[in-house]
Formats: sequence, C-alpha cells, structure tokens
Amino acid sequence: MKRSQLFIKTRKEAPADEESRNAQLLIRAGYIHKEMAGVYSYTTLGLAVINKISQIIREEMNAIGGNEVQMSTLQNKDLWQATGRWDDAVVDNWFKSKLANGTEVGIGLSHEEPLTNMLKSYVSSYKDLPLYAYQIQTKFRNELRAKSGLLRGREFLMKDLYSFSRSQAEHDEFYEKCAAAYLKIYDRLGFGGLVYRTFASGGIFSKFSDEFQILSHVGEDTIFVHEGKKIAVNREVYNDEVLDHLGLKKEDLREEKAVEAGNIFSLGSKYSDALGLHFTDEHGQQQSIIMGCYGIGVSRLMGLLAEHFADDKGLSWPAAVAPYQVYLCRVGEEDQVVNAANEVYDKLTKSDVSVLYDDRGERPGDQFGDADLLGMPYRLIVSEKSLAAGGYELKPRTSNDTQIADFDAVSEALGKSLQA
Amino acid sequence: MKRSQLFIKTRKEAPADEESRNAQLLIRAGYIHKEMAGVYSYTTLGLAVINKISQIIREEMNAIGGNEVQMSTLQNKDLWQATGRWDDAVVDNWFKSKLANGTEVGIGLSHEEPLTNMLKSYVSSYKDLPLYAYQIQTKFRNELRAKSGLLRGREFLMKDLYSFSRSQAEHDEFYEKCAAAYLKIYDRLGFGGLVYRTFASGGIFSKFSDEFQILSHVGEDTIFVHEGKKIAVNREVYNDEVLDHLGLKKEDLREEKAVEAGNIFSLGSKYSDALGLHFTDEHGQQQSIIMGCYGIGVSRLMGLLAEHFADDKGLSWPAAVAPYQVYLCRVGEEDQVVNAANEVYDKLTKSDVSVLYDDRGERPGDQFGDADLLGMPYRLIVSEKSLAAGGYELKPRTSNDTQIADFDAVSEALGKSLQA
Repeated sequence: MKRSQLFIKTRKEAPADEESRNAQLLIRAGYIHKEMAGVYSYTTLGLAVINKISQIIREEMNAIGGNEVQMSTLQNKDLWQATGRWDDAVVDNWFKSKLANGTEVGIGLSHEEPLTNMLKSYVSSYKDLPLYAYQIQTKFRNELRAKSGLLRGREFLMKDLYSFSRSQAEHDEFYEKCAAAYLKIYDRLGFGGLVYRTFASGGIFSKFSDEFQILSHVGEDTIFVHEGKKIAVNREVYNDEVLDHLGLKKEDLREEKAVEAGNIFSLGSKYSDALGLHFTDEHGQQQSIIMGCYGIGVSRLMGLLAEHFADDKGLSWPAAVAPYQVYLCRVGEEDQVVNAANEVYDKLTKSDVSVLYDDRGERPGDQFGDADLLGMPYRLIVSEKSLAAGGYELKPRTSNDTQIADFDAVSEALGKSLQA
Repeated sequence: MKRSQLFIKTRKEAPADEESRNAQLLIRAGYIHKEMAGVYSYTTLGLAVINKISQIIREEMNAIGGNEVQMSTLQNKDLWQATGRWDDAVVDNWFKSKLANGTEVGIGLSHEEPLTNMLKSYVSSYKDLPLYAYQIQTKFRNELRAKSGLLRGREFLMKDLYSFSRSQAEHDEFYEKCAAAYLKIYDRLGFGGLVYRTFASGGIFSKFSDEFQILSHVGEDTIFVHEGKKIAVNREVYNDEVLDHLGLKKEDLREEKAVEAGNIFSLGSKYSDALGLHFTDEHGQQQSIIMGCYGIGVSRLMGLLAEHFADDKGLSWPAAVAPYQVYLCRVGEEDQVVNAANEVYDKLTKSDVSVLYDDRGERPGDQFGDADLLGMPYRLIVSEKSLAAGGYELKPRTSNDTQIADFDAVSEALGKSLQA
C-alpha cells in the first residue's frame, strides 16, 4: 500500500482527553480514533491489526474443533430473564434499548443465553455432542469508568467460545485443550514466555477459573508466578488454603505485575438447565449439558501489544500482527531513487511481503519519524547513498543495526522474520 | 468439513412465526436462527455465505481505492445533533441507549456523521483528497415491521462507502466508478444480466439517486426497464417529466418486479459543512468537501440469493457464495465405500475444493434431501454402485444430469465451475 493512497496522518500529540498510553500511541499513529471514553473506531491500519489477531485466534479455535458462528447483538429479554441475568441489580453493565413497539431489548454483552437457546434447534441426542461454538464479535458493556483505552472498552471485539459437553470428564478434557490452544495463540502473537496460566476466583460454578496473565509493565493485576511450573496465582485467591490445595509454596513464588489476556470458566449446567437445553443419552435418559466459556479480548490484545512493545519513538509490532512488514522510505526525488523505490515496492509486494511505501515526497526526518511511530518490523530506505552502496538500507524496528542489502538479501531477511 | 463436526441440523418445517421465504429456507437448512423479528444469528454455514459475499464486495471496493475501516456502533449524540439527525421526529428508526452516567448514545444506523468527524483528524489540504472510506459493519434500524427475513432486518450487515471529493466533477467521476464496481459485484455474485441501474428519488441532495435493482419474482419494487440501455426507472419517479429528462420513451420500457440490492447517493456538502470538515485548496482558500454514500446490504444479498435461486427442494447457491462447492454423500457403510469416500474427501480438500462430507451414516434419502436443501453447487455420491461403474456420481444442484466420473473428471468439472 502506498501512503498516498492511505488516508491516515500521524500527529505529535494525542488528544488531551485520552489518558491511556495504548490509545494515545494508537491515535497519534493513526490506527484508531476516539469516539467517546471506551469507544474507538479503527482506521485501515487499526483494522489490519485487529484482523491479524482475529485470524490467529480463529485458526487455533478451528484446530480444536470450534465452529465459528455470529450471534446477534440485539438480545431477547426473555432469555436473560430465564437465567436471572436481565435485572440491572444482577448484571450492572447492560446497555438496553427498546423496539419501536416498546419491547425492551439488550445490546449484547455476552452470549451464553442466546447461544444455548439457539442450540435447542440442533441438539437433542448424545450424538449431537460435544459441541464447540465460537464467534469473534463486538461486545457492549456499560462500564462506569473507561480510561484504559483498548484495555477496557465499552465497545470491544472479543472471541468467545462456548463448550457443550456430555459429562464433567468430557468437559475437563476440552477445557485443557482450549487452555493449550490459548498458550499457542499468545505465542503466535509474539508474547513468547511472558504468559502464565493463573488460578483465579471461580465464581459460583467451580473453585477456580483460569486466567491467562501476561507479565508486563502495563499490568494492573498482581500475580504470584511459579517459574518452573509456568503457572501463577492471582492475588485475589492468594492465601494459605489455596496454595496448599495447589501444592505450591510461598517461597517458590515471585510477585509480578500482569495483564489478563484471556480467561476460561466452567459453567456447569446453570445456563443449559435454565434454558431447557438437554440431551438424551444412550439409554434414552434425559441428561444435563455441562458448559464452559472461553474468552479472549481481541481489541484488548491489540491495546496490550501496542503498549507492551512500544518505546519512546512509538509502536513496535511483532511481525505476526503488524499491518505491514516493511515501511519503505524514499529519500530523494531523483529519477534513479524514485524508480528504484517503485521497483523494490513492486517486487516485494509480488513476493507477498507487505509494504507500506512512503511515496509522498516528505522530508527524510518526517518519514523516519513515521516509520518509528507506525512500528512496522522493518524500515527500508532507498536513497542515492544506499544505491551507491549497492542496495537498500534495512533496519529492524527493534534495533539500530542497519545494513545495506540488495533485493535478495532484503527478501531473505524478511522471509526469515515472517517464519520466526 | 465433515457433517459430524458441524453442529447444524436441517428440519422439515420452518418456525411458525417466520413469514418470509428466504428466512424459512435458511432456518430449515440450518444457516440462520431467528432471535426476534428482523434479527438473526448465523451458524457456521450462514457465516460462510456472509463472508464470501463480503470478500467479493471488499475486493471491488479496494480496486477503486477504498480504504476499509471499522467505525464504532455506539454513537455520540452531539455529532448527530450537529446535522439535525438525532431527533426521532427526523430519523424515526433509531435505537438509543444511555451510558451509566445518563448520557444518551445512539446505536449505529449509518455513519456519515462519525466518519466525517473522524476525518477532521486526517484531512486539511487538497493533497489529502479525494478519499474513499468504507466498512462492512452491522447496522441497527428500529423498523416497526420486519417481516421480510434477511431482506429487511432490524440488525443487518451492510457495506457502506463514503466518498470525499474536492469538486463536483471529481465526485461525479468516482460516483460512476463505484456504479461500475457495483455491477461487477452483482455479476460475481451470480446475478448475471438481471441487474439494472435504476433512477430513483434523489432526496434533498440531488435530482436522482441510483438504485441497483435485480429482477426477481421476490421483488417488492416496481421498475420500468430499458433492455437496450440496461437501465430502469423506479415507479416512484416514473412520470413524463422524468422520462423526458432521461430521454426515454414509455413504449421502450417494460414493467418488472425487482429487489433493490444497493444504492448510491450524492450528498453534496451537507454533512461536511455541518461538521466542519473542509479543505484548503492550492490557493490557500477554504473549500467545501463534496460527499457521496454507497450502500450494499450484505445480509440482504444473502437473503436475496437464497430466495431467488431456491427451488421446491431447497437452496441453490451460485458457486461464488456457496459455503462448500460439493456435498459428498456416502451411501453404504461397507469398508470399500467408506475408504473411497474418505479418500475422495481428502483429495478434493487437498486440491482446494471445499467439500461438506456427510459422514454420519444417515439413510441415502436423508442425505440426498439435505444435499438439495443445503444447496451446494454439486452433489457427489460414493456407493458400491458408483464404484463398480468406475467412480463417483456427480450431479449439479441445478439439473438432474448425473454422470459417473473418476477423480480427475470430478476435479476438472469442479475446477471449471469455480472459474466460471
């Protein structure tokens, strides 16, 4: 893509009303636009990151047997009354509205109820289970305060998977499979060894739930990590009884700041029973269905990736989620430079390396500033100087090591980065 | 995909409260689920059709320079008050809600206002224009009656592009480019020669708008088509003055039923002026920006494709939008048959032909019924009989011509169908 064809502009200052560092950076770099506190729109650049994160999650959910669906945003009040979750005194962050005829409707904040209800059309026998349905869908939560940018929005994109199993054992097996898939997702996103499966409060359905906490200076949660076992305990359940139960000793644990990047819950049969979703077993007996839910905030991950990897010059995306792999700077407007820049852009694009080409004729300093702020993994400079030295100047966003490389060498370096 | 891994089930009867034929069929075939009147959820099959339609539209919008974005659903009241479109007396199909602090918010029904406002961060000079931004996004409209299934929803998926031009001439040029792109989209979706660019009422901004009407027995609109010129006039503006203006004669026009499948509007500078989006021209003078909007209902097109191409046996998707190209029936559970069916499934899948494989061991009649109802372009049967005859029985959904074909012949037939 050529910068001249992309409508974004960078700016020196974020809006005065934006407190969070992730949103400040993403607004300055032209990835998102603030509509109101906790509500953001995405430009082409921002949407590209969202789509890359979503696709990684999608692939891993499909790999464990997930069926992707898309539930409606408008919610039928009756379903939520059946489970006791309509009342604002029980669930305090609903957005609600009304149909033209006066009927109240909810604006989707989660989808246990409608999905369970929908499955009554498809599930009756033990042969129809187990079943795993997920969606990547916008959620709406009426938070009183929303000051963390993409880390906690009133409107945000989430992957939510729901499992429907015939027994606790079948449920437990999938629960572990999904936990393993989550670790793969964070790994692919670029968080490497920073992720700890973390014991947290289980609510009313089970003793514990599992959070996936990413160690980060951005973190608002406090967790106690066991390095050897690669697990952690959230402060909210950090007490002697729990540590005993888990067979962990205080002296083996280290306190850390972390950000929750996903959670998985056992739901028992609360929702399926309340909404009348059952199955008939091999002996003709009606049985309860055991559910689980498995959430990952897609836009939250974008915010976390932005803030965690940023430096004082701007964003710095891991290759797997960067909108483009290369920011191509054309330094000088001489025919030789313009032709060479056009040529390397065409050749890289044709060999499936995605390039954002700064073809606007801006000053070198402004181009380099944008390259740093926008945070693509590599900056490539074409100039009279680089051409005289035999090629293009290649520099990773994360270091100051520049090298002059010809097309094949550039291609090879970028290919390796993409496979890593 | 194997049927055993897909959670949908077909059924003989649609729900009693569903009046529209497109929704009846899509519910019976397990593509969608009705949440309430005009609000549907999408199963994996339904979502696949939505994604195929979306991708075709996306490619054609990118080809004319569109930048894809994603605007928020929650709407800032101030922006809509600035253009006079907040009041329910002016726009009568808003869904509205409230933030926890009591501030009213809208649930997005269109995006002229927020997009125009967002662009104030990116547009100031003539060098920043023209600019074309689009999104594929869920819209919410509080229709009093919603009885047409996917053809008119309260919650529906839409592609909306907005153009921002420096002059009327620049606007007109893009307007025609987008009209041409729309015709390409309908062509790729499988509507072939059925589409007529149709003069319709222009509202307050221009004398006419353009609708894209598809001739169909499903049609609720009446249009008068000129076969030679491949254009039409909507009944709402069909009078002597308009015909004179367009240089059309009544005797050359034919009355037809049609469905509106897209529309494009000139907006003048109403929204840009009201929200303070201007540009500075080459001479340093502030100028107004001319806008256009260009809509296509994605879920509406899915409903139209479903209903228009259906026959008394069920759905019949054009190859470009079918969730799978082939419905593979395994008739008989003998080892030879099972092995052959597994093998052809693996080989087709590996050669990028998408197959829905009925591996459930159901009776042949039920499998054939599902193949017809689900509407993939081809049915492929593996049975002892077909194997004895030298291969598999291939039949297009749209005819009764069966042929026995070996793998290469099947592959060739399916390859041709996909390129067509």
